[in-house]
Amino acid sequence: MGSTGRNAVLRTHELGSLRAGHIGQSVTLAGWVARRRDHGGVAFLDLRDASGVAQVVVREEQVFHGLRNEYVLQTKGTVEKRPEGNENPALATGEVEVIAEDVVILNTADPLPFQIDEHVEVGEEARLKHRYLDLRRPAPARDIRLRSEANRAARKLLHADGFVEIEPPTLTRSTPEGARDFLVPARLAPGSWYALPQSPQLFKQLLQVGGFEKYYQIARCYRDEDFRADRQPEFTQLDIEASFVDQDDIIGLGERIVQALWRLIGVEIPTPIRRMTYAEAMDKYGSDKPDLRFGLELTELTGFFKDTTFRVFQAPYVGAVVMPGGASQARRALDAWQEWAKQRGAKGLAYVLVQESGELTGPVAKNLTDFERGHLAETVGARPGDCIFFPAGERAASRALLGAARVKIGHRTGLTQDGDWAFVWIVDAPLFEPAAAAGQSGDVAVGSGAWTAVHHAFTSPKPEYMDTFDKDPGSALSYAYDIVCNGNEIGGGSIRIHQRGIQERVLAVMGIDGHQARSKFGFLLEGFKYGAPPHGGIAFGWDRVLQLLTGSESIRDVIAFPKSGGGHDPLTDAPAPITPQQRREAGVDFKPQPKEKPKAEGGAEAREPAGAES
Amino acid sequence: MGSTGRNAVLRTHELGSLRAGHIGQSVTLAGWVARRRDHGGVAFLDLRDASGVAQVVVREEQVFHGLRNEYVLQTKGTVEKRPEGNENPALATGEVEVIAEDVVILNTADPLPFQIDEHVEVGEEARLKHRYLDLRRPAPARDIRLRSEANRAARKLLHADGFVEIEPPTLTRSTPEGARDFLVPARLAPGSWYALPQSPQLFKQLLQVGGFEKYYQIARCYRDEDFRADRQPEFTQLDIEASFVDQDDIIGLGERIVQALWRLIGVEIPTPIRRMTYAEAMDKYGSDKPDLRFGLELTELTGFFKDTTFRVFQAPYVGAVVMPGGASQARRALDAWQEWAKQRGAKGLAYVLVQESGELTGPVAKNLTDFERGHLAETVGARPGDCIFFPAGERAASRALLGAARVKIGHRTGLTQDGDWAFVWIVDAPLFEPAAAAGQSGDVAVGSGAWTAVHHAFTSPKPEYMDTFDKDPGSALSYAYDIVCNGNEIGGGSIRIHQRGIQERVLAVMGIDGHQARSKFGFLLEGFKYGAPPHGGIAFGWDRVLQLLTGSESIRDVIAFPKSGGGHDPLTDAPAPITPQQRREAGVDFKPQPKEKPKAEGGAEAREPAGAES
Repeated sequence: MGSTGRNAVLRTHELGSLRAGHIGQSVTLAGWVARRRDHGGVAFLDLRDASGVAQVVVREEQVFHGLRNEYVLQTKGTVEKRPEGNENPALATGEVEVIAEDVVILNTADPLPFQIDEHVEVGEEARLKHRYLDLRRPAPARDIRLRSEANRAARKLLHADGFVEIEPPTLTRSTPEGARDFLVPARLAPGSWYALPQSPQLFKQLLQVGGFEKYYQIARCYRDEDFRADRQPEFTQLDIEASFVDQDDIIGLGERIVQALWRLIGVEIPTPIRRMTYAEAMDKYGSDKPDLRFGLELTELTGFFKDTTFRVFQAPYVGAVVMPGGASQARRALDAWQEWAKQRGAKGLAYVLVQESGELTGPVAKNLTDFERGHLAETVGARPGDCIFFPAGERAASRALLGAARVKIGHRTGLTQDGDWAFVWIVDAPLFEPAAAAGQSGDVAVGSGAWTAVHHAFTSPKPEYMDTFDKDPGSALSYAYDIVCNGNEIGGGSIRIHQRGIQERVLAVMGIDGHQARSKFGFLLEGFKYGAPPHGGIAFGWDRVLQLLTGSESIRDVIAFPKSGGGHDPLTDAPAPITPQQRREAGVDFKPQPKEKPKAEGGAEAREPAGAES
Repeated sequence: MGSTGRNAVLRTHELGSLRAGHIGQSVTLAGWVARRRDHGGVAFLDLRDASGVAQVVVREEQVFHGLRNEYVLQTKGTVEKRPEGNENPALATGEVEVIAEDVVILNTADPLPFQIDEHVEVGEEARLKHRYLDLRRPAPARDIRLRSEANRAARKLLHADGFVEIEPPTLTRSTPEGARDFLVPARLAPGSWYALPQSPQLFKQLLQVGGFEKYYQIARCYRDEDFRADRQPEFTQLDIEASFVDQDDIIGLGERIVQALWRLIGVEIPTPIRRMTYAEAMDKYGSDKPDLRFGLELTELTGFFKDTTFRVFQAPYVGAVVMPGGASQARRALDAWQEWAKQRGAKGLAYVLVQESGELTGPVAKNLTDFERGHLAETVGARPGDCIFFPAGERAASRALLGAARVKIGHRTGLTQDGDWAFVWIVDAPLFEPAAAAGQSGDVAVGSGAWTAVHHAFTSPKPEYMDTFDKDPGSALSYAYDIVCNGNEIGGGSIRIHQRGIQERVLAVMGIDGHQARSKFGFLLEGFKYGAPPHGGIAFGWDRVLQLLTGSESIRDVIAFPKSGGGHDPLTDAPAPITPQQRREAGVDFKPQPKEKPKAEGGAEAREPAGAES
C-alpha cells in the first residue's frame, strides 16, 4: 500500500454509486478528501466526487498521515458492509465502506482559504475569488446543475413545438434598446466599433422576416448599466420569437415553459395563469410586478380625503395599505418606516394605528376630521391592532411607495413563505411613457421626443389604438405581456409591429426621425420592406428564473462565475489594464487622415463619386 | 372575397402539411407568395411558409392582380384534389390545391433586390446584406435548421453521458491563447478593459478544479485575427472537459459525437476511427490534417538524391508526390503549378513527366544521373503517364508544399467525391515548436522564450517526456489529439497539466516567468493549488463541422448572420463609428489622476500602508 503509481484505469465506479450490491467487489475510485477521522490504528476518509461521497477505510497510519483535506486521491479497494451500528442512513452510500488497498495521491492541496462545507460563513467576495472551491459545496453545485436541467427542459419543449435554435451574432452594431451598449474596437477598421447585443431583438425579428417562423435561443446579453444590486453586465435570456401568432399563442407557450421548469423542482403550476391589466396591477398593488402570494390590496383615498383639512393629504393622490397587527410596533419601528420612505425619496410615510379599542392613534390621527376617523378603518379594511400607512403626493411616486410598503409588510408579517408560487401575466401596459419618467428610472431614453416606449420601439399598439396612438400617446395600450412570479418579472414580450408605416409612426412619437431611424436600425426597417409576417415573442430572464427555482438569494448564485459589484470579477480580476501595444493595435486612438484636397494639376476629380456634393 | 380583414385565427394548417386527406376541409393558411401564374380567369399562387409550399387557386382576377411576389397573405379556402394530370409529384402537397375564398394581404413587399430562388446567382455581399431574404431560399434555410439539429444531437448524447452544461463568462480577462483578444472598455472602471474569450479554456479547467467532472457548452468564442479566408471574428465551438479521464476516454466520446452528427445526414461513420501520429501524418501527407479520402502518399527522396549532381536537389529535404495521368498536362498547366508554388513562397516546383514509353521528360529530367533516371519512377511509385512533383529545400516548408500539392492533385484528378468521408485522429504532436515558426503562421507567440506551445500552454507532455521536456523541448510529445475529416481539422484537445510544478516548468520553457504567469493567468495557477484533478477535453469547431455536414462551401453558409471579409457585417454595417458621448462614457480616454504628493503639514503618513517601502 502507498503511492505505487497511478493505476491504468482512473476509476471503475463513481463514489456516489456504491451500494450493498457492490459488497465484495474490487473497485478503483477517485475523488477529493472531504473529511478525515483518525481512530488510531484505523482511519476514515470521506472521499467525494461529483456523484457523491463514500467512506474509505485506511489501515496504514503512515499513508493516512500524508493526506490532507481536498487532496485528490485514487484508491483501489474492496467494498465491504459497514460494521453493525456504523451505517449512515443520511448517505446514499451509507451501508458500505471501501477498505483501501492502495492509495495514490493524484494531486495535493494547499490549506484552503475557506472550508468546503454546506454551512460555510464566508464573505461573498472570497467565495467568488475562489469560486471553484465554492462550487465544490453541495448547494452551489446543485444550483449550477439545475441550470443545466432547466436549459434542457426548455429546449426539449421548444423542439417538440417545432422551434429552431439559431444563434445571431454578438459582435454587432450599437442600437438603442434602453441601456448603454458595451463597445468593442475593431482593429481591422480603426475608428469603428462593434457593440455587444443588449438582446437579440432585431435579429430575431429579422429571422421572422427570413421565414423561420419559430426561433429560440438561450442567449447571452450585455447591458452596461450603472450598478444596481443583483444585476450583471452579462446575463442570459431564453429568447423566443414566432410568426403568425397572437398574444394568446405566446402566453400559452410561456405557460408551458413555466410548467416544465417548475416540474424540475417537483411543483405543478396550474394553468391558465391569471392575467391582470397593467392598470389593475398599479391600482391594487402599486407595481407592474405584484407579489400575489398575499392580498393586502391598496386602497386609493384621494376621494375619501377630498375635503380633508390635513394639509399632507391635500395631494393629487392619497393611498393606503394596511399592516396587519402593525399597531403594536414600537416607536423605533415606526420611525424606521419613515427612514425607509425617505431613502426612497419620499418626505415621509404617514400612518395611523388602530388600537384594540378601535381608537385611532399616532401623530396623523388628531389631524383627521370626525368623519374621516369614523370611516377610515372600514374604508381600508383595517381591524383593531392594524397599522395603516398613507403615502400622499404625486400619483406615480406615491403609488410606487405604497406598492413597496405592501411588499415589505408582506415579508415582515410572514405572509410569504418558501414554496408559495404566485404567477400572473401583466397585460395591456401603456405603449408610451413620458421620456422624463424613463430618465428617472436610470434607463437611457431613446429618441428625443416627449414620449418613449415602455417596452421597446418595436412593440405593437393594440389593434384598437392603431389609429390614435400618435394623436394621444398617453392613452394607447400595447400588445405587451410580462410574466411575474412572486413579485419578480421573469419574462416579457410583445406582439411586434410588422408594418413599416406603423413602425415609422411609433418612431415619430419617440422623436426618432427617418434619418435617425435609418442610422440606428435601418437594417431592420429595410428588412421590413420585403414582406415581414405578423410576429411576436417573449424572453425569459434566465438568471432570475434560476434564482427562483433554486431558492437562491441572488442571481449570482446561479451563475458559474458571476461578477460582483461594479462589474468586477473577483476570480480573474477583470476588467484590467491593457498594454500600450494592445491599445495601439486595437485602433482605439485612430485619427482619420485629413482628406486630401483636390490638386490643381487634376486627376483628383476622377476619384470623387459622380455627382458628389461638396 | 378580398381584404375583408384579418381572420381571428391566423392559420389552421401549415402549408407543407396539406395532403389528400385534407380534401374537402376548410382551412386558413398564411405565408409568402413564392410564385404567381395567371391563366386568364383563374390564377395560381405558390404560397410558402416554413413547412413548405402549397398551390392556391385564386378565381378573382382583381384580387390576384393586387398581389406581388413575397407579399404575406392569409387565405381561407377549401382543399380540393388537383384536376387529373395537374398533380405535382415533386411537391409533398402536389396532390391538392386550395380554392381561395378570402385573401387578406398581411403585408406587402417592395420589389426584391434578388429573387428568392434555389439557383440564385447573386454576389455574396448582396446576399449577406439581405440575409433574411437569402434565408428564405430552401438550401440556406435547411443548413440553419440542420445546425439546430446538430446542437440537439450533441447535447442529447452529452446529457446521456452525465455532462453538465455550464456557461462561463464572456466579459473576462485578457489571456494569451495564441491570437489577439477583442477588448471591451469598462465604463465603471475607467482605464480597465474586459476581453472576450478566445475559448472557455481556463474556465473549463477551473470547473474541473470545482469538481464538476463533466462540463460542456456550445460556446461563442472570439479571435481578433488578421483576415484569412473562411475565418470569422466570432465563432462557435462544442467545448467539452472532463475529470479522471485519459486520452482514450475523450477520443471515444469524440467518436460517438461524430457518429451522432453524421447520422443526421444518414451516414454511419465506422469506429474506432483510425489514429495516426503527427510524425506519420507529416511524413506521408505533409500535413497535420491529412485528407485521407485518397492515397497519394509522399515519398522522401533526400536519401535517394544524396549524391545528386543537380543543384536544386542538393537540399536538406527533397520529396515527391505523384500526379496520376499528369504527364499529359499542357505546358500552360505545368507553368501554373510553378506560379502556385511561388505564391506559397517557394522558388518553384520541379517536376518530371513519365512518358508512356517510360522515358522521363521535362526540364529536370536531363539533370538527373542515369541511376536516378533509372530508379525514380519505381521509388516514388509513378507509372507511365504520371507526373512527379519535387519540392526541395528546408524540410518543414518543402513538406508543407508537398502536402498542399498532394491535396491539389487529389481534387484536380477527381480522387475526392461528395459523400466520401475520411476521418483520422492525429496524436502525439510535439509539445513545443520554435517560437519563430509560430510567428510565421500568423499567431501571436505567447511568452518570450525560444519555444512556444503547439496546442496551448496547458497541454500535458506525454508521461514518458515528463522528466525531459524542459531539457529537450524539441523532442517532447504532447498528450494532444486532433480529429480531422477530409483534410479539415474539426476538433482538437488534450489531456491537461493538473500539477502546478509541471505547469510552471512548461511555462518556463515558453519564457513565461512566475511574475508574468501570475499576471496573465494567475487565477488558474491559484486554483491549481487546491486539488486539481487529472482532466482533459476537446473542442469541436462547430462552424466547420456544420460546413462539412451541409456540404457548404464556406462556414459563412452555416452561420445565421456571418461577417464578410475584414470582419464587416454587410447586414448591419457593423463595425461603425460611435458617438463622442459613447466614447466619453466608455472611459476609453481615461487618464489616471497624478498621485497627490504627501503634504508637509502631515496627515499623509496615516494614509500610507504600514511598513510601506518608499
